[in-house]
Amino acid sequence: MRKLRMGMIGGGQGSFIGDVHRKAAAIDGMIELVCGAFSSSAEKSKASGKALFLPEERCYANFEEMILAEKELAPGERMDFVSIVTPNHMHFAPAKMALENGFPVVCDKPMTLTIEEAVELEALVKQTGLLFGLTHNYPGNPMVKQARAMVAKGDLGDIRKVQVQYLQGWMATAVEKTGQKQASWRVDPKRSGIGGALGDIGTHAENLVEFITGLQIEELAADLGRFGEGRILDDDGNLLLRLENGAKGTMSFSQIATGEENNLAIRVYGEKGSLEWHQEDPNKLFTRWLDKPMKVFTPGGNDLYDEAASASRIPSGHPEGYLEAFATVYRNFATHLMAVMNGDSIERPDYPSVSDGVRGVKFIYAAVESDKNNAAWTKIN
Amino acid sequence: MRKLRMGMIGGGQGSFIGDVHRKAAAIDGMIELVCGAFSSSAEKSKASGKALFLPEERCYANFEEMILAEKELAPGERMDFVSIVTPNHMHFAPAKMALENGFPVVCDKPMTLTIEEAVELEALVKQTGLLFGLTHNYPGNPMVKQARAMVAKGDLGDIRKVQVQYLQGWMATAVEKTGQKQASWRVDPKRSGIGGALGDIGTHAENLVEFITGLQIEELAADLGRFGEGRILDDDGNLLLRLENGAKGTMSFSQIATGEENNLAIRVYGEKGSLEWHQEDPNKLFTRWLDKPMKVFTPGGNDLYDEAASASRIPSGHPEGYLEAFATVYRNFATHLMAVMNGDSIERPDYPSVSDGVRGVKFIYAAVESDKNNAAWTKIN
Amino acid sequence: MRKLRMGMIGGGQGSFIGDVHRKAAAIDGMIELVCGAFSSSAEKSKASGKALFLPEERCYANFEEMILAEKELAPGERMDFVSIVTPNHMHFAPAKMALENGFPVVCDKPMTLTIEEAVELEALVKQTGLLFGLTHNYPGNPMVKQARAMVAKGDLGDIRKVQVQYLQGWMATAVEKTGQKQASWRVDPKRSGIGGALGDIGTHAENLVEFITGLQIEELAADLGRFGEGRILDDDGNLLLRLENGAKGTMSFSQIATGEENNLAIRVYGEKGSLEWHQEDPNKLFTRWLDKPMKVFTPGGNDLYDEAASASRIPSGHPEGYLEAFATVYRNFATHLMAVMNGDSIERPDYPSVSDGVRGVKFIYAAVESDKNNAAWTKIN
Amino acid sequence: MRKLRMGMIGGGQGSFIGDVHRKAAAIDGMIELVCGAFSSSAEKSKASGKALFLPEERCYANFEEMILAEKELAPGERMDFVSIVTPNHMHFAPAKMALENGFPVVCDKPMTLTIEEAVELEALVKQTGLLFGLTHNYPGNPMVKQARAMVAKGDLGDIRKVQVQYLQGWMATAVEKTGQKQASWRVDPKRSGIGGALGDIGTHAENLVEFITGLQIEELAADLGRFGEGRILDDDGNLLLRLENGAKGTMSFSQIATGEENNLAIRVYGEKGSLEWHQEDPNKLFTRWLDKPMKVFTPGGNDLYDEAASASRIPSGHPEGYLEAFATVYRNFATHLMAVMNGDSIERPDYPSVSDGVRGVKFIYAAVESDKNNAAWTKIN
Repeated sequence: MRKLRMGMIGGGQGSFIGDVHRKAAAIDGMIELVCGAFSSSAEKSKASGKALFLPEERCYANFEEMILAEKELAPGERMDFVSIVTPNHMHFAPAKMALENGFPVVCDKPMTLTIEEAVELEALVKQTGLLFGLTHNYPGNPMVKQARAMVAKGDLGDIRKVQVQYLQGWMATAVEKTGQKQASWRVDPKRSGIGGALGDIGTHAENLVEFITGLQIEELAADLGRFGEGRILDDDGNLLLRLENGAKGTMSFSQIATGEENNLAIRVYGEKGSLEWHQEDPNKLFTRWLDKPMKVFTPGGNDLYDEAASASRIPSGHPEGYLEAFATVYRNFATHLMAVMNGDSIERPDYPSVSDGVRGVKFIYAAVESDKNNAAWTKIN
Repeated sequence: MRKLRMGMIGGGQGSFIGDVHRKAAAIDGMIELVCGAFSSSAEKSKASGKALFLPEERCYANFEEMILAEKELAPGERMDFVSIVTPNHMHFAPAKMALENGFPVVCDKPMTLTIEEAVELEALVKQTGLLFGLTHNYPGNPMVKQARAMVAKGDLGDIRKVQVQYLQGWMATAVEKTGQKQASWRVDPKRSGIGGALGDIGTHAENLVEFITGLQIEELAADLGRFGEGRILDDDGNLLLRLENGAKGTMSFSQIATGEENNLAIRVYGEKGSLEWHQEDPNKLFTRWLDKPMKVFTPGGNDLYDEAASASRIPSGHPEGYLEAFATVYRNFATHLMAVMNGDSIERPDYPSVSDGVRGVKFIYAAVESDKNNAAWTKIN
Repeated sequence: MRKLRMGMIGGGQGSFIGDVHRKAAAIDGMIELVCGAFSSSAEKSKASGKALFLPEERCYANFEEMILAEKELAPGERMDFVSIVTPNHMHFAPAKMALENGFPVVCDKPMTLTIEEAVELEALVKQTGLLFGLTHNYPGNPMVKQARAMVAKGDLGDIRKVQVQYLQGWMATAVEKTGQKQASWRVDPKRSGIGGALGDIGTHAENLVEFITGLQIEELAADLGRFGEGRILDDDGNLLLRLENGAKGTMSFSQIATGEENNLAIRVYGEKGSLEWHQEDPNKLFTRWLDKPMKVFTPGGNDLYDEAASASRIPSGHPEGYLEAFATVYRNFATHLMAVMNGDSIERPDYPSVSDGVRGVKFIYAAVESDKNNAAWTKIN
Repeated sequence: MRKLRMGMIGGGQGSFIGDVHRKAAAIDGMIELVCGAFSSSAEKSKASGKALFLPEERCYANFEEMILAEKELAPGERMDFVSIVTPNHMHFAPAKMALENGFPVVCDKPMTLTIEEAVELEALVKQTGLLFGLTHNYPGNPMVKQARAMVAKGDLGDIRKVQVQYLQGWMATAVEKTGQKQASWRVDPKRSGIGGALGDIGTHAENLVEFITGLQIEELAADLGRFGEGRILDDDGNLLLRLENGAKGTMSFSQIATGEENNLAIRVYGEKGSLEWHQEDPNKLFTRWLDKPMKVFTPGGNDLYDEAASASRIPSGHPEGYLEAFATVYRNFATHLMAVMNGDSIERPDYPSVSDGVRGVKFIYAAVESDKNNAAWTKIN
């Protein structure tokens, strides 16, 4: 076997998330970046690729060129999959074209601008049989995997209540007017879609709830805020949640929560126990019990379920962070892809799927609709 | 001057909150307990008083007897005020009778069962000119006072977002069927009123939001839960909030949040800064800023506003807790009452008032109405 | 029964620790302050007593007067015990005189200026059979009691390592030159004795180690610092410890640890488990295990030993702090004294004893001697 | 420019630290692994290399073979530097041979078994002019860099006190008898040298103190423990420290601190302020001040010095951990090496040097000597 070869779409110089994807893909030594269409400008794409030590001929002017050119290369040489790290409006087209040309896809979230696109991708994945991974990174955290496993095995009993929050403050002022690249497309419906903070971080919160509880959010009541002057898209949201089993909860997300950095946190309450996890302190899982003292789980520590034990790389007490969780998504995708390329199968792929992507887009649409109706209850479907 | 003499209504043996009130009233050495109608059973009242080292003749069979008998005693000997620590349905009658007979009142929350009663008490307080203190204890915490002062002085800028939670787990199982005294009246609408957890702890959350922000909650959307089998009253609630200035937020409270002890916490986000306070870790106030690192304030520590600096008793680093915050409410009430008895006045009484009590009851009614209407937006008024 | 009557020596206006003792003694409603010799100035003593609502005739000019006068009163009226809260040099004489005149004693720490005095008091207590309580308050904390119980029952296995620290910063600058009352006597060997920070807080650290582990510190190597300009007494210390069972450890204390408030913390490591407690976050006991995840105990929470369960007053999650721990020492002393006055006995008094006081003074002398010998190993005896 | 080519010595299958080095070197995309002598068994070396997707011909039987063979390759193809990740006794020989054959070196710590070897390497580095990096990873943490910068710029004033601890529990039981590979060489003086936990983690603590304070430890008093049955080398240590400027402190390290994972923490107290950092919670730097509230710095957050600001990769609130800090050491070494290869120079290399390695070995020897003399004060030199 050899390392998997990755082609990247987006992620040119100055991109935050492109750099994250490259580092994450590199950590476990299973993937090498071999080509890219890093920017919509051919010149910037080449400059970006050069800084990444790529040969000039594999720094393409656009994704169409890349997909077609790479397809012509020999199997051992061409990219084995593409990673799409562009702004939201540029996910669908390259993902579709990659799949149609036989390339497995790793794609950033939210998956597409519209439900129709999302459903089309889901169908295409099914039809082509190609692998598709969605980079919700938080399910890559060992303690999130432990949380999911504890709920799945019934340790907490029936789930009754969920609280999730994702609080950032970086848009508390009008950063989009200062030339900040990320802010400028985040506030633009053409590039972000109908959700602002909702699409960016609300979808992470939604995904985390459903990943950990194994339950779907059935309906929601959303009160979105647009606090930044002149903003068309939401920069804040408060939601009531009802899950398919009767559990209730709240979601709160914000990009105007002044001073917050990346405060994603979740609490899940069951009949017998409960759990609490904070992204900014990711190496602890706090669990509380009817009749026992609080237990705090740690990556690599005692009494973990296999799902969590296998998700950390280094001994307990050596903190893993955001990049490692992201890397786990890539590692699990790569493991799956290598297996497929070897003609093997794996029991249960452990990374977010195209269907998770569909859920995320439907969640965005439900929240926007609810908000338009003064936070009326709205089903996700 | 001498110590103030307190008569207590409720709080007999086995009562949690009666004991809290007595300890809180004792800490600062300004108040002595001189009499009580501790139970609806004359026998239990006497036994309770005896355990408190009270003379038998001042352990009364009921509050009516106490009020009338004490009134007959000489001014220097009779009780100076009454403290009412009964279940909710027994707040109104003794409070009313005490006021009508010239006794100032300290009363537990929620103040009354109905809005009508609350409004009647408010009018009576105005009419008699007697002091009335409501024991919302959390505003007694030095860091809560610092939080309020920081918002009031504009340190955070305009408030945009609030998150408040009050999570307990002690009713996660059917404790009311085990003979647990508190649980049995908390689930009984006759004694609790129309709110369960809503009245018990939701009102604390409501009060804390309004105390810290100085803003009223204008409307709310409430989704209440009744997870305990057979419960008529709510044991859980999730709410969307809109404040009078346009700020938005969430409230979540629960008594079925398994494993939680007394997890009251609040976050307030303004344009320039934000703050976070946790009741279970009460001696820190976390503040975050647009352009400065997080600052953590502590009681007795550096850079506090006077309101906070004067609210702690011991040097910084010597933790004060629940009882001390409660004691501050009593201390400030006692300071006010002593001033009045001396013919003096004080600039601004610093303890919750009868009007705060009215707000609390109106909040309960608004939340219950919203819940009946599937979490429709409902004004508090 | 009636409340116990306490006479206080020291603790006049402006005293930090006198106020702490009074509040602590008041909380549980078992003790009332009836008289005092609050200051070496008769005038200040009277003014202090008046502010405490005491009758003038029981505000004495000095402790000798108080002890003799109270002795003349009828048993039901005179003070039942004395509480000594003066600077260190004024502990021995009043304690001795009180015992010799039949009054039980509560005394602040360090117990005396010299080992000889300490041993004399110990002998006197034995000879008179009177109760003597030393106000090391930290053993009053529920989580400290849980820690002691866990070690005693063998939960941690044999103890191998101890780390204790007591860090304050209030003397980082020359506060003794600013008229700060406490600082001025703390730096004065005539009033403090041969130890500075050593006597003030080092003794707390020593007591905590021995209380929790149930083991004596056999020898120590002490490197004391005098960082404040012109200070004769230590304001900082670093020590190596060897316990009687072969365990090893460190102690570090300081009053020049800039910015620290009252950071007393201890870690104890045994063969099977370990524990960690922080005075500034007193309501958690962190325990770590060979083969289980961390467990966090809380006052009033699950799985506590009786010693800890009985030491908290309010339900779990309602934080108790410094005053409550202090109050527990008074409560347990009062419970014992009431039993004795009723002709009963109690199984095991749960408050620090005169022998703990002797240990503390011997510890001070050993540390000073070690320091003089360039941190040579020195036995405590 | 192209990626730097790394050859690795040690780090075969099952090695913890070899894997850490590879991941750390990969993260920033500046280094690729091209060859290795991964094991003293040629067979295991090949198997290890294969699993890393290396061509068989560049998986060497031993380091001598690797150095000689690679030297024969063309400059663009052969390794650019070697990374030595073997047990301690196998650092010196390959480092020396690499340098003598013109290869820059990255070497794990402690650098050598003896002071003589360390000094010889230091001379060889000077003589050859080749780069040499020592992988003390903790100085790679952004908050450690901030700490160092704050001290250097005088923010804390003169340093008076230091407390450092490095607590692990993985050797609390006799793991070396269970076939645990790491434990077996750690307890073996032939492979570990004269220090056990002292060499493994004590050196990290020593390095951290000197890195942050910019001060050398002048002398120490060490009380080492050998708690594991039959252990020849220390598995625990408690030390008094005196720094060159008169500051004092303690160090405590252990591998028998049951339940501890990787609890490295440091506190540094200056005349004006102090700081506290915990490796297990690496993304916060707590600072305390004479006259201001605590400030908490975070990677990517407000008010960082350049040294810290440039050391984090992702926005604030996205936690970086152990691997990222390790990667920063590699990145800074690689940046330096690329500059040198390009004929450039860099102002101040920001990674631990061969001289830091000499300090570490001298520290080990001083501590062992002190311990032999019953913790007598011993100079490091």
